[in-house]
Amino acid sequence: MATARVREILSWYTSENPGVKANLARIMNTGRLAGTGKFVILPVDQGFEHGPARSFAPNPAGYDPRYHVELAIEAGCNAYAAPLGFIEHVASDYAGDIPLILKLNNSDGLSKGHEPCSAITGSVEDALRLGCAAIGYTIYPGSGARNEQYEALRELILEAKAVGLPSVVWSYPRGIGLTKEGETAIDVSGYAAQIAAQLGAHIIKVKPPKMHLEQAEAKKVFEKHAIPIGTLTERVKEVVRSAFNGRRIVIFSGGEAKGTDEVLAEVAEIAAGGAFGSIMGRNAFQRPRAEAIELLHAVMDLHKNAR
Amino acid sequence: MATARVREILSWYTSENPGVKANLARIMNTGRLAGTGKFVILPVDQGFEHGPARSFAPNPAGYDPRYHVELAIEAGCNAYAAPLGFIEHVASDYAGDIPLILKLNNSDGLSKGHEPCSAITGSVEDALRLGCAAIGYTIYPGSGARNEQYEALRELILEAKAVGLPSVVWSYPRGIGLTKEGETAIDVSGYAAQIAAQLGAHIIKVKPPKMHLEQAEAKKVFEKHAIPIGTLTERVKEVVRSAFNGRRIVIFSGGEAKGTDEVLAEVAEIAAGGAFGSIMGRNAFQRPRAEAIELLHAVMDLHKNAR
Amino acid sequence: MATARVREILSWYTSENPGVKANLARIMNTGRLAGTGKFVILPVDQGFEHGPARSFAPNPAGYDPRYHVELAIEAGCNAYAAPLGFIEHVASDYAGDIPLILKLNNSDGLSKGHEPCSAITGSVEDALRLGCAAIGYTIYPGSGARNEQYEALRELILEAKAVGLPSVVWSYPRGIGLTKEGETAIDVSGYAAQIAAQLGAHIIKVKPPKMHLEQAEAKKVFEKHAIPIGTLTERVKEVVRSAFNGRRIVIFSGGEAKGTDEVLAEVAEIAAGGAFGSIMGRNAFQRPRAEAIELLHAVMDLHKNAR
Amino acid sequence: MATARVREILSWYTSENPGVKANLARIMNTGRLAGTGKFVILPVDQGFEHGPARSFAPNPAGYDPRYHVELAIEAGCNAYAAPLGFIEHVASDYAGDIPLILKLNNSDGLSKGHEPCSAITGSVEDALRLGCAAIGYTIYPGSGARNEQYEALRELILEAKAVGLPSVVWSYPRGIGLTKEGETAIDVSGYAAQIAAQLGAHIIKVKPPKMHLEQAEAKKVFEKHAIPIGTLTERVKEVVRSAFNGRRIVIFSGGEAKGTDEVLAEVAEIAAGGAFGSIMGRNAFQRPRAEAIELLHAVMDLHKNAR
Amino acid sequence: MATARVREILSWYTSENPGVKANLARIMNTGRLAGTGKFVILPVDQGFEHGPARSFAPNPAGYDPRYHVELAIEAGCNAYAAPLGFIEHVASDYAGDIPLILKLNNSDGLSKGHEPCSAITGSVEDALRLGCAAIGYTIYPGSGARNEQYEALRELILEAKAVGLPSVVWSYPRGIGLTKEGETAIDVSGYAAQIAAQLGAHIIKVKPPKMHLEQAEAKKVFEKHAIPIGTLTERVKEVVRSAFNGRRIVIFSGGEAKGTDEVLAEVAEIAAGGAFGSIMGRNAFQRPRAEAIELLHAVMDLHKNAR
Repeated sequence: MATARVREILSWYTSENPGVKANLARIMNTGRLAGTGKFVILPVDQGFEHGPARSFAPNPAGYDPRYHVELAIEAGCNAYAAPLGFIEHVASDYAGDIPLILKLNNSDGLSKGHEPCSAITGSVEDALRLGCAAIGYTIYPGSGARNEQYEALRELILEAKAVGLPSVVWSYPRGIGLTKEGETAIDVSGYAAQIAAQLGAHIIKVKPPKMHLEQAEAKKVFEKHAIPIGTLTERVKEVVRSAFNGRRIVIFSGGEAKGTDEVLAEVAEIAAGGAFGSIMGRNAFQRPRAEAIELLHAVMDLHKNAR
Repeated sequence: MATARVREILSWYTSENPGVKANLARIMNTGRLAGTGKFVILPVDQGFEHGPARSFAPNPAGYDPRYHVELAIEAGCNAYAAPLGFIEHVASDYAGDIPLILKLNNSDGLSKGHEPCSAITGSVEDALRLGCAAIGYTIYPGSGARNEQYEALRELILEAKAVGLPSVVWSYPRGIGLTKEGETAIDVSGYAAQIAAQLGAHIIKVKPPKMHLEQAEAKKVFEKHAIPIGTLTERVKEVVRSAFNGRRIVIFSGGEAKGTDEVLAEVAEIAAGGAFGSIMGRNAFQRPRAEAIELLHAVMDLHKNAR
Repeated sequence: MATARVREILSWYTSENPGVKANLARIMNTGRLAGTGKFVILPVDQGFEHGPARSFAPNPAGYDPRYHVELAIEAGCNAYAAPLGFIEHVASDYAGDIPLILKLNNSDGLSKGHEPCSAITGSVEDALRLGCAAIGYTIYPGSGARNEQYEALRELILEAKAVGLPSVVWSYPRGIGLTKEGETAIDVSGYAAQIAAQLGAHIIKVKPPKMHLEQAEAKKVFEKHAIPIGTLTERVKEVVRSAFNGRRIVIFSGGEAKGTDEVLAEVAEIAAGGAFGSIMGRNAFQRPRAEAIELLHAVMDLHKNAR
Repeated sequence: MATARVREILSWYTSENPGVKANLARIMNTGRLAGTGKFVILPVDQGFEHGPARSFAPNPAGYDPRYHVELAIEAGCNAYAAPLGFIEHVASDYAGDIPLILKLNNSDGLSKGHEPCSAITGSVEDALRLGCAAIGYTIYPGSGARNEQYEALRELILEAKAVGLPSVVWSYPRGIGLTKEGETAIDVSGYAAQIAAQLGAHIIKVKPPKMHLEQAEAKKVFEKHAIPIGTLTERVKEVVRSAFNGRRIVIFSGGEAKGTDEVLAEVAEIAAGGAFGSIMGRNAFQRPRAEAIELLHAVMDLHKNAR
Repeated sequence: MATARVREILSWYTSENPGVKANLARIMNTGRLAGTGKFVILPVDQGFEHGPARSFAPNPAGYDPRYHVELAIEAGCNAYAAPLGFIEHVASDYAGDIPLILKLNNSDGLSKGHEPCSAITGSVEDALRLGCAAIGYTIYPGSGARNEQYEALRELILEAKAVGLPSVVWSYPRGIGLTKEGETAIDVSGYAAQIAAQLGAHIIKVKPPKMHLEQAEAKKVFEKHAIPIGTLTERVKEVVRSAFNGRRIVIFSGGEAKGTDEVLAEVAEIAAGGAFGSIMGRNAFQRPRAEAIELLHAVMDLHKNAR
């Protein structure tokens, strides 16, 4: 039976059919954080997004698609997320071992000069036949092509939930509407979380927000109402609040690979801010396996003990 | 990670997509028998098949749909099977708590004189939106309407597997082609298991076979080859062999309600015959809750220790 | 490159698209008879048609679906034909090892008193996803339900050929229109072959015809024109002539299990009559493996040396 | 029966249905490299891509579509790949003689100034009616139109695999995102292989990579981890590793026509790097027939003896 | 019965169904060139393409749609080709009198400045209901919009052949990729014929090629291999060779209206080059009727006597 916390989180999704809830529950009832309502997810789409050498050369075991799903299982993650090719390669041999999230769009780094926009590289039909527990999708708020992305996402969410699949949305501000600094500005991060929630995302992934305020109108409001954004913990609180006052699951990415202490210090702040968890790719799979598992366990413990 | 036995069983279904395998794995990885490759499933379709009074008056708690799914969860069953109404009533509140099997056809006892034939009372779409792990379907080999049943089943199985759902087939010989005794004759039982397997069933449910031999041609063969059918254990072996030499999951129903000793003696023989498990309805839900759980645990133990 | 004889046979099917021809060629280019234009096919649908005990008890290895496809491969058959369940069980593990023929309809022996009619137990979609080289289908000329069967077959043939799959038709006279003796009468056998050919069958399977003449009008013609039917060889010639004067592939079933000498004597007569080959089930799989292979090789040699 | 190596390669595609596996097996079980898990494929799309004179004037026999398929058959290639017109012209007369790969998109050289993008010139339906064993498709990573190409490919792969057809993807970096040198840079080549694999390609065709490193971020990684790229063999290893650590079939094109010694020296290095084979067009069909067959045999020998 | 030459030509289309072959045969068995394998077709799409005054004022009888079909019948043409309106106007009254080719796309001359691209102005359904023997379609290789045209054509060809209709493709190089001179350059003309053939055209219409060589890479090849292009006859040979070495029907348009001697001199050279015939519009219908018929007869004689 689900824990009280899992029931509470599911109660925020009462408009959804039992299939969507069951898959959300499956993700929450899996791994070392089972039943806590906290999440640590392993995502590995960097092979597509950054290329194989940049992604896997630091720990060459990762060239093999099996490595990642085994790492996620062994570390006790709630789910493993990847593009079609990686999921297809492991879905049969590891059937039922861990909830899979099929990333339905991806962007490679070989073409330049256009507004950020991913290609659709998978379908809800793929997710079903591969036994996935959710679909994943990236939007780029701030991109000149954002509306096409929102529209495609809305259709996919609707299609997915009809067959019982929840949606995980990577909300990454980027593009013509934003400065480089603005991509992780606290006002923009909260806004990105809100947009994903308004589009119907069940789980929202954002980057840890920085102290910068990008939009003049937003800046005025943050200052007028003295919204605290001085620490990462405060900023995470603000982002979580921006996603329906904490009634949507918001998880934070780990970003570029860095030292263990640095990662854990950041996660500690994120966890203290009420985050629902971490989605940690490069900092996990670019480390040697044992070290990665140790790190993931430490991250899980920080989230588990956060409240 | 799945156990070696679960992996072995999944290896018999190599033509299936990962979604079908993942749901089979989910069922095998749930409950007190998780990982053993054995099954105890709670089915409650008697409200539709026999009427509520006959079904629930012996233990009135069972009038409430929640009672059964809670019983299945608490007893540690692998799955809970029921018609649409019962599943719809509990799918949301117990989302993710236990694999659900949606019985897609049902036959009531209010009309007589026709060849046995169930109505289709649910769909693959229902199974997905309700978060089910499999569909269920009853065929009546021996019925004058059997062909229509086989044809409808084939289409449902194809539709279900495309979206990752395995199929559980109740194969109950009955109808114009058979005597009453023939319905559970050993030759007929093995034949019924074979038909379900040939139609593409992933899990096959049959009744415990009796010593009677129904068909003259089959009788000759049983006698010529001296196939042992003197004990229930021997007959179960023959039925399991009839379903692709044990390479399809065959489980046995408990039949009419009876005393605990009688049930356990029968299950002991069934388990010794290489059955993959039991699907036990009336003998479970018509007992008081504590007693039912005790019985189900005893049944599970018999299967777990059988080999 | 195909042999001259294979090219000649394919030239009878010029209205077909290249996909249909390629699959016919695949079947003709496989096994010990590759390139000869002769066929020996192993069909195993008796589990469904007669029940598992009658089919497999004589050689219990045959309860296992893998046994049959391995037998067909090892013996060097042109193809292996079976219902959905048997094909699904082996299609992945033996992918590409031998052309598979998916029997799309089947009839069990558990219901009585109706006109002979099989249930549709598979689809063209199944044949494609399972990598089959052809579909198979049984018609019962003489049955009161024959028209429904012809109509369903026509639709399946059209659907199958659009995706490059040829059709193998079991044409078995049976039913209200015929006496028991008439089922294998020479006039009826030739008629049954003609019907299958007219319905668009690419390969036609009939039973060895007997000397009986069933229909009064036909009897007159056979007698008036002194059509020789005294020997099996003569009768096979008449059946082959009845299928577009030998410009359709007609193969003959072996019928009930019998002694090796008897089988070979019959096949020798069939081969001498210009048959394109044999489709031999029970006489193959009910023998011990080594003996079955020896028999199948002898049958192949008879066909190979026939012309 | 398939060899152990063919079985091993098929085991990397466990999520696929038996139809896809059977066609992959057919390609691997054809020609002089049958059973080795190595591939030499003859592709002739240059008539469309470069025009007939540039393609066929060096060996005018090649103006006739029959020439190429006969060359592929006689040389013992695993498969022959071409656009619709060429395949349609030969599919019937050479039905069953060699696995055919229908190139579903093609780009002519008569229009300039746009981002590289091919037209869709065939369909999965065409591939089926023509009896093909696979579809082929070209993507141009680096092109401003890449996302449309990825999306169209994804739909075609899904459609094709539903009917049992695997997909061969030509991954040719080109377009606004890349310098001319970058099109064959080692970092870009590996990235191109990864993208094709993530999109679900079953067989990936890339060009032999050069020593150039195109992307600054990738350059850092190659240098930091001292990935050896000094020889073609080392670079091929890196590309093969980039396609799921060698668990996807990667074959290398021969590129522009050149002298025999030069071709063989290059193939020797490619084979030593663990390539699964060569796809060799111009260097084959632009030579006189006897010379082409001799060359293809030498290429096959290099691959066969490589490991 | 078809002549040996007609049978030979049909043998190049063996992948097609009998319906497509029958309509090709109908066209080849019609008119004064019946049985010769040569074609003279009257096309009248200039009303749409150039406007009525430019098209019909020189011979005002041509304003009446009946004029053209009667001209084609009386002159003994193989077929008459026109857009929907013209065909609809005459299809009933002249039903069965001459094979009709429905031009499925057309471009008017009222809009400028975009890349050449025709509108789809008819459908396969129209062609069937109007009793046509083929569809017609124009592509503009070299146009920036060429890919859309190729893709639409491919779908129409597939749709048309499914209902037994062959396709006639006007392949007219034009657009951003080409100079004005390049539109009829010999290298480009051969390339245009190849593209149409690869797209599946059954009959290809091109303009008489000129001596210019447009593409630098092609120029090198023409010079290196000393391909003779000095006379129109030589250039026609090269174009015919470019369409599958003469195994696709290639016919040449007459182009702008000109004097009779000039027309016949050009046709004589075209016929000597192995062209399959002429498609002659303005030079026919802009002349007085009797004169037009005389000219068409002369053109037919030149083609008939060419080989």
